[in-house]
Amino acid sequence: MSAPVDFYFDFTSPYGYLMSEKIDALAARFGRAVNWHPILLGIVFKETGGQPPISSSLKGPYLLRDVPRSARFLQLAYQHPATFPVATQAAGRSFYWLQDRDPQLARHFAHAIYRAYFVDGRDIGQPEVVIEIAAALGVSADELNSALALPEVKERLQKASLDAMQRGVFGSPYVLIDDEPFFGADRLPQIERWLQTGGF
Amino acid sequence: MSAPVDFYFDFTSPYGYLMSEKIDALAARFGRAVNWHPILLGIVFKETGGQPPISSSLKGPYLLRDVPRSARFLQLAYQHPATFPVATQAAGRSFYWLQDRDPQLARHFAHAIYRAYFVDGRDIGQPEVVIEIAAALGVSADELNSALALPEVKERLQKASLDAMQRGVFGSPYVLIDDEPFFGADRLPQIERWLQTGGF
Repeated sequence: MSAPVDFYFDFTSPYGYLMSEKIDALAARFGRAVNWHPILLGIVFKETGGQPPISSSLKGPYLLRDVPRSARFLQLAYQHPATFPVATQAAGRSFYWLQDRDPQLARHFAHAIYRAYFVDGRDIGQPEVVIEIAAALGVSADELNSALALPEVKERLQKASLDAMQRGVFGSPYVLIDDEPFFGADRLPQIERWLQTGGF
Repeated sequence: MSAPVDFYFDFTSPYGYLMSEKIDALAARFGRAVNWHPILLGIVFKETGGQPPISSSLKGPYLLRDVPRSARFLQLAYQHPATFPVATQAAGRSFYWLQDRDPQLARHFAHAIYRAYFVDGRDIGQPEVVIEIAAALGVSADELNSALALPEVKERLQKASLDAMQRGVFGSPYVLIDDEPFFGADRLPQIERWLQTGGF
């Protein structure tokens, strides 16, 4: 059994959402599991001088056209959120807290967050919304609400973001297969060939 | 007959090179010609605050891995140039000067420049090298050398870069099909579907 594929993403990243809908099934076809790693792109951009593409005068309008088109190309539902981008501390922290308790539930939660934001137009930047989404999956709202205030829960997401940078991650989505890096949902065809051939 | 596809690129852009080897044949399959527009990304980046990806601490190393892999994926020859990036004023100016005289020759010249740089490792940042490459295609070296000093030849490339920005171009390669924008060599599959279906 080969090592799991690593999938790094920020919950506010639309291309991360596109990847999230494809990577598990693709990896599974080649006998690979996927480890999901939500990160805060803000931490990465502070270090690298990177900027959210949406804030660029020419890339921003392109993104608004390319993302929905890429979603249609991949046959995925997509509705550009009214509030974009949003802070994803609550979503990311909740993910790791759940991950330590029930990895499968954490995976369901991650999908639910992405779909709530990019399909149903819910503002996942609001902690209450994140907690509601978790609660709908059977998580105790009170327990999660308390957990989100814990320093170790905050540090976990911070550390995940720094660890990601150590591995070269500069944007979302970023996939590592063994040590081979793939940036962007548009690398899905190369990821497929890499998994199929063991490298090309 | 549908309108030509517009292909914007900088001669120092490796992803531009990848696109240059594919776009004509792809467009031709759907009855479309392609207008090639070399530009200076430096002019664009000055306006947009963009940066060459190679100069970023994390994107740079990724690029050095992703470009050769993307070339293999597309079954194209690629050798990363020793000097990278380079100034492409001479190459771009020569292109437009040739374009006004013999469009087909200008297309051959553009391919020759890209291959000289990304396959044969020649330093196309040197005007002498650009002139040699043109001379090998039958262009008068003296005539081209004189042309490169003309203000109107310099302005032509400058104007092409500004016109490109007016159309939204922020990087290389950038393809416009009617008014639909596609950024990056990785958009080839979407370009194909767009040409096939007239939009999706």
